[in-house]
Amino acid sequence: MYPNSIKNLIESFKYFPGIGEKTAERLAFSVLQMEKEQVESLSKNILDASKKVKRCKICNNLSEDDKCSICDNNSRNSDLLCVVEDPKTVFSIEKLGTFKGYYHVLNGLISSFNNFDTGELEIHKLIERVQNNSFKEVIIAVKQCIEGEMTALYIKNILSDMNVKVTRIASGIPMGADMEYIDSLTLEKAFDNRQTIS
Amino acid sequence: MYPNSIKNLIESFKYFPGIGEKTAERLAFSVLQMEKEQVESLSKNILDASKKVKRCKICNNLSEDDKCSICDNNSRNSDLLCVVEDPKTVFSIEKLGTFKGYYHVLNGLISSFNNFDTGELEIHKLIERVQNNSFKEVIIAVKQCIEGEMTALYIKNILSDMNVKVTRIASGIPMGADMEYIDSLTLEKAFDNRQTIS
Repeated sequence: MYPNSIKNLIESFKYFPGIGEKTAERLAFSVLQMEKEQVESLSKNILDASKKVKRCKICNNLSEDDKCSICDNNSRNSDLLCVVEDPKTVFSIEKLGTFKGYYHVLNGLISSFNNFDTGELEIHKLIERVQNNSFKEVIIAVKQCIEGEMTALYIKNILSDMNVKVTRIASGIPMGADMEYIDSLTLEKAFDNRQTIS
Repeated sequence: MYPNSIKNLIESFKYFPGIGEKTAERLAFSVLQMEKEQVESLSKNILDASKKVKRCKICNNLSEDDKCSICDNNSRNSDLLCVVEDPKTVFSIEKLGTFKGYYHVLNGLISSFNNFDTGELEIHKLIERVQNNSFKEVIIAVKQCIEGEMTALYIKNILSDMNVKVTRIASGIPMGADMEYIDSLTLEKAFDNRQTIS
């Protein structure tokens, strides 16, 4: 029904996770309405990003070089190592501009789906980094869920005989949220982790 | 903060209407996780569609040829001409498979924003087609809104001295909708257009 080139474009947009027929159609029609230069740069940037971006050899963050710009920066705080699930979290934390330590990207969490297998996670590399560097604190910044909990405990355990403090970022009520809309698990956690007002 | 190629890709995705920073980031990260072949075909299909697709010289529908596959099909019902706002509506109606006439794409509606200007709409071409062909009925299938109403009335008027019936697709309560959630304008229209149960 659609001309072939539109049909192919719609199929291509369906490669994106979470994009179904309707959204793919909408995106395809948007391409047809773009300026020639926009279409060309979109097409080129897709190829470029896919070709140029690789993983940092030290922390697994995304980078165009062997070493990402964060690992390559000697002026950061070498006492702190922040462990995250994926590169996106690195960029989210970097946007804050408050954390000045280094990162380690696990590439996933320990999951009960694959029998708590840690094979694909970059945990061996994390152990090596902690052994070969002078980090004083490993901050685990993974999401609040069973997998996150398991991953945090696992890392805490394997690092237990090394001279490093292992912490986890706080869980509780998000800023500005209405109390009545907070789910009970979050509320319970917020009570458990209550802090003395100083 | 992001490597340049990711930054450029995010900017490119923001060309799409309705796609902001967050969604553009999500799409860019999805590209990085695609197979090489998927990335290449996505990039190629974007260029291809933009290069190959043009407007049908007769009805303004999207087509890779001068004449779209519908106008090129002599076995359709040459009594009926369906007037739509954009090519997407053509494909939506074609998906039903029930309408067998021809189409005319206006490329927009008459709008009060630009002083009811009909300059950019393909209305002159519509008049020519009605004059030079033997259509018995022009069915206006544009959305229910003030612009749609104005456009329908305008077309009705300019075609009034030609030997053709001008109709508009029905407006009323959508199938399966709960009565309590129907807005009052729709409900009013549904009462006005009530039909005898035969």
